[in-house]
Amino acid sequence: MTTKVELLEVPLSQAFLDWTKTKQAHIESVLERTLPPASLAPQTLHRAMRYSALGGGKRIRALLCYASAELCNTEANIADATASAVELIHAYSLVHDDMPCMDDDDLRRGKPSCHKQFDDATALLVGDALQTLAFEVLSAPQLCENAKQQINMINILAKAAGSYGMAGGQAIDLSAVGVALTQHELETMHQLKTGALIQAAVLLGANGSEAHIAAVSIYAKNIGLAFQVIDDILDVEADTHTLGKTAGKDANSNKATYVTILGLADAKKHARQLHEAAIDALAPFGDNAQRLRALASFITQRSF
Amino acid sequence: MTTKVELLEVPLSQAFLDWTKTKQAHIESVLERTLPPASLAPQTLHRAMRYSALGGGKRIRALLCYASAELCNTEANIADATASAVELIHAYSLVHDDMPCMDDDDLRRGKPSCHKQFDDATALLVGDALQTLAFEVLSAPQLCENAKQQINMINILAKAAGSYGMAGGQAIDLSAVGVALTQHELETMHQLKTGALIQAAVLLGANGSEAHIAAVSIYAKNIGLAFQVIDDILDVEADTHTLGKTAGKDANSNKATYVTILGLADAKKHARQLHEAAIDALAPFGDNAQRLRALASFITQRSF
Repeated sequence: MTTKVELLEVPLSQAFLDWTKTKQAHIESVLERTLPPASLAPQTLHRAMRYSALGGGKRIRALLCYASAELCNTEANIADATASAVELIHAYSLVHDDMPCMDDDDLRRGKPSCHKQFDDATALLVGDALQTLAFEVLSAPQLCENAKQQINMINILAKAAGSYGMAGGQAIDLSAVGVALTQHELETMHQLKTGALIQAAVLLGANGSEAHIAAVSIYAKNIGLAFQVIDDILDVEADTHTLGKTAGKDANSNKATYVTILGLADAKKHARQLHEAAIDALAPFGDNAQRLRALASFITQRSF
Repeated sequence: MTTKVELLEVPLSQAFLDWTKTKQAHIESVLERTLPPASLAPQTLHRAMRYSALGGGKRIRALLCYASAELCNTEANIADATASAVELIHAYSLVHDDMPCMDDDDLRRGKPSCHKQFDDATALLVGDALQTLAFEVLSAPQLCENAKQQINMINILAKAAGSYGMAGGQAIDLSAVGVALTQHELETMHQLKTGALIQAAVLLGANGSEAHIAAVSIYAKNIGLAFQVIDDILDVEADTHTLGKTAGKDANSNKATYVTILGLADAKKHARQLHEAAIDALAPFGDNAQRLRALASFITQRSF
């Protein structure tokens, strides 16, 4: 049984759904090539890195990156590098988040999480090495003709992942268990924890094209928050099997979520508003932003 | 009581010792400015990052970086960025290595290790965020006039820290507990675990100056291994108080070390040979490499 979060009525075209499938397969093959082969020493670490970064997830961040790259005519090799770097950072964060000292989750994408499949020490090193690999990918010599632009991309990713971004959001999340957060505080936390990397995905796809940065930033910020609101809704509405990770976990662990703060109906309404704000930000691009628009719907309509 | 490892007779000049003190104080102030202030949210994470990266250690990697920068006339701001990036990577690795699922060490630089002072989840995030910060520092816009050179520096650091470098060495180390390693296997492990970052420190200081890279690489490789041999000797000879971390730990945990494989006397002899090979590699630079020569002695003579 799949649980559909009914939020929007925007139909997704078959062409768009085909595009997502093609790009999901494509980023998988890019990551296949990018990750160290399991045959090379240290084998266990490399096997565990591949286990954690391959074969799963909707690759929302990569899709955002590719759609943004399409809008900005970013070269294919740069789009591949940025999409894989963002997915590697995301994969590292999941591996560390699942560890016993953090969220202690045994299940990820329908499989045992990394520390369950291997062990805690390996999971720690897997996360560490996946993060490093993201920066290695983005610092490949000859990636961009414009080296200054490449440095800018690395800086965007570092800022999004660090203590003022994803890692900082995770720290705030940790300290917020059992605390009655306001909606504003919850939003700040998510803006860092998941929003920063989603925003980075869109900005990296845009590849420094300044004309587009401002508009796609607003799009990315809103879609990032919408994504999180949906996550909270799914945590309540979906079951563990369809979610591929433990359902009801946030509610059970006494964490503030959009659903606990707003209630289910208003959380859905909030997701719709965020979605609309994201779409509005794309107005200047006209038809060229169709893919980003469809992705916004894809994210807010996703059923797992 | 301090324990002196008598390995070499090379006297260190007062001028050199003054230089190390000056540079140690300098890198401390650079890191002070680089790390997020503890007053900014998320405060606990930032406080723990500062706790872990400031106020301790001999800053061997930063000193190597500065001495190499001196040899290659690297600009001061680039030397500061590379020295602090390398120290941040080193600090991150110590925080993660000390965690219960890894070496489970309660003491670091004479203070409670990060996870003891804070908690495991915070230590995990501290390591993650310190690594990210290293790449943020190196990707600062306008750091280098030559952007391609800057990308090269980031790539050197990423390779040294990743699964074919430091993290990989740590993985090999983990899998080697209780295993009878050969000297060659032990050397490979250390070459990755500590050698790669030490080598990166010297190469980053050299800042892409190709004429110097080959020679300083050999210097760095040998001094990196010597450093580890001394570490193994100190683990046996020094006491916990003077070492600032738990002494006798490797021997007690049934880990292969240079001392267990070679015996104490031959381990010292091996350190001397590595030291000499490092010095030999500097011959082409004549007097210009005095600082790197003295550092080689400093590293092999260190008494803690």
